[in-house]
Amino acid sequence: MTSLDSLPLRADLQGAAPYGAPVIDVPVRLNVNENAFDVPEPVVRAIGARVAEVAASLNRYPDREFTELRTLLAGYLGGVLAAEAGESGSGASELAGARIRPEMIWAANGSNEVLLHILQAFGGPGRTALGFVPSYSMHPLVAQASGARFVGVGRNADFTIDPAAAVAAVREHDPDVVFLCTPNNPTGTRTPLEVIERIYEAARGIVIVDEAYAEFAGSDFRSALHLLPGRERLVVSRTMSKAFAFAGARVGYAAADPAFVDALRLVRMPYHLSSLTQAAACAALEHTEELLAGVRALVAQRERLSAGLRDLGFEVFDSDSNFVLFRGAADPHALWQRLVDSGVLIRDIGLDGCLRVNAGTERETTAFLEALGAAVEQEPHLTDGKQG
Amino acid sequence: MTSLDSLPLRADLQGAAPYGAPVIDVPVRLNVNENAFDVPEPVVRAIGARVAEVAASLNRYPDREFTELRTLLAGYLGGVLAAEAGESGSGASELAGARIRPEMIWAANGSNEVLLHILQAFGGPGRTALGFVPSYSMHPLVAQASGARFVGVGRNADFTIDPAAAVAAVREHDPDVVFLCTPNNPTGTRTPLEVIERIYEAARGIVIVDEAYAEFAGSDFRSALHLLPGRERLVVSRTMSKAFAFAGARVGYAAADPAFVDALRLVRMPYHLSSLTQAAACAALEHTEELLAGVRALVAQRERLSAGLRDLGFEVFDSDSNFVLFRGAADPHALWQRLVDSGVLIRDIGLDGCLRVNAGTERETTAFLEALGAAVEQEPHLTDGKQG
Repeated sequence: MTSLDSLPLRADLQGAAPYGAPVIDVPVRLNVNENAFDVPEPVVRAIGARVAEVAASLNRYPDREFTELRTLLAGYLGGVLAAEAGESGSGASELAGARIRPEMIWAANGSNEVLLHILQAFGGPGRTALGFVPSYSMHPLVAQASGARFVGVGRNADFTIDPAAAVAAVREHDPDVVFLCTPNNPTGTRTPLEVIERIYEAARGIVIVDEAYAEFAGSDFRSALHLLPGRERLVVSRTMSKAFAFAGARVGYAAADPAFVDALRLVRMPYHLSSLTQAAACAALEHTEELLAGVRALVAQRERLSAGLRDLGFEVFDSDSNFVLFRGAADPHALWQRLVDSGVLIRDIGLDGCLRVNAGTERETTAFLEALGAAVEQEPHLTDGKQG
Repeated sequence: MTSLDSLPLRADLQGAAPYGAPVIDVPVRLNVNENAFDVPEPVVRAIGARVAEVAASLNRYPDREFTELRTLLAGYLGGVLAAEAGESGSGASELAGARIRPEMIWAANGSNEVLLHILQAFGGPGRTALGFVPSYSMHPLVAQASGARFVGVGRNADFTIDPAAAVAAVREHDPDVVFLCTPNNPTGTRTPLEVIERIYEAARGIVIVDEAYAEFAGSDFRSALHLLPGRERLVVSRTMSKAFAFAGARVGYAAADPAFVDALRLVRMPYHLSSLTQAAACAALEHTEELLAGVRALVAQRERLSAGLRDLGFEVFDSDSNFVLFRGAADPHALWQRLVDSGVLIRDIGLDGCLRVNAGTERETTAFLEALGAAVEQEPHLTDGKQG
């Protein structure tokens, strides 16, 4: 039998393991920040109708420019901007009155592919990407996949980013690409627009603001979309996987200056978005309200999670996302395994004393809190002793 | 307005233009080697049913291992092997009795992404890929996207590969990856298994045999799948875009040693194949016979094309594919434009005196031959003078 070692693998991949959370078949899965709610029936019907429309002509290549999808995504983001501007009660939005235009939109098979396109265009061999860790674990992998080097800069103890330290790190490492993730995965932490602005001004290269979880943030959250005008090196990436309950359809997207989007056309594989993906995503975006209806319920469950974890004696980090990071495990992997044994799968993200759990349905969230409560009571050695 | 030049694009992309055939809305499109036949109604229904099954649970990530799809693709390729072994009337197939196992299968969003994964694993910065040109124009682009250098080695005047010259070129350039395309795009040329074997033996690196058009080849064609046993550096890539009339669904795949497939797991983005893609492809593979029914008709139209082009005085290269390369244009672009003006879109592939046209329906093929006949008659200066 051939082993991987006998193949002429790229040097930097030798000894690597494939990325991915363990797949374990248990009743309650709260490990990959999925949306706990099924796609609502009207949206399922709309997807079926759209797919039926395109199925007969699948012999033809898709629209390489995914024109309708870009238009619908632009409309959605325009609505986000307008709502946030209204919410803040000021005309202060730099885009107030302006729109997100379709030529500012990119999309790909999941936001990972959006990020890969950005790194293929602006990263690559000999270049450097910088991120503020802990953050989304795919950022370094995507940078390395493009051939770029990744530099991780630490966060404060509460996982916020210190603006002066961030600016100093950017000046020191002079990165070609900066990753920011807000709300940050796996910590749930928000990075204020003022901090993003300062980092952008300090940077020579591209600044990616990964807002995969933005729809779950508090009503005072403001998207980096507001910063786009006049900042041609800024790109804001989002996904339909989380708030839109569309992880299985693999649709990530981004907004940036049209020239930035042109750069991504140079690196994407031709026809990278299938007709099926385009059809399903368009159907979903025509039912934004129904799809986003689950967001409020998930935010309520996140708050239940945070409160329940604090009641149990764990340290809980403020989260603007659909998940919560908590600290207090003596051995996170042992506590994780104990929960798996109870039929509840959460995420061991390899962070000292910490585990991550995403909000589920009310029943799932209850199942997690009860399983954890039982673990704390029955096996106190699994925790740091402040519990129970 | 920002221009692309003002962005910190990777040096090797500066001045590049996006890949892609011109998109022109004319009645007869024979330019991108699509299958001329719509997806048959029973398959459309099966796709609809499968998609309906998965739509409600699109809130969950897809099966990262696309287990059912790999099983069905393995079954399809096993059938190809068995048919070819039967056809040749011998037990000579090295895989006779053996099967293509699911763990030998990889799939991605189009064969371009399959090739990209291979190059990301085995190419990349500082490495070299080699191909025999003219060939599929994405091969150099995929190599460069991974950071690898591409070396193009010429073919014989009839676009076959000279085995001794090929072996010498492989020894000289010592490539990490060799691209072979058989039947070759854009020339339609077959490369015999014996030549592939010799190139494999001469090479230290990976050998990719791109068989995107294999289903259109003559009955004496034998797939490089037969060569897989004992050749762990060999990979055979295929696509559902052509014979399966499934270009819009973006499903490419490959077969190789399981260890080779493991290497691709290291570079693919997590969950790269959506639940929709997996569902639609599985539906299609359960209706292989209906989908492949168009192949025979397209081969007949290809033969009509070849005969018609020869009748008009053009040099036609033997094709094992669903397209034909012909020579005899004084200025290929001018002749291409003249055909566009007549409502027929074919492909100017930038090859001296040549144009490429794919077989269409009987009506489309007739429209092309008539438009070309009219051009030859009315504007003889567009050809090299041997026509009419």
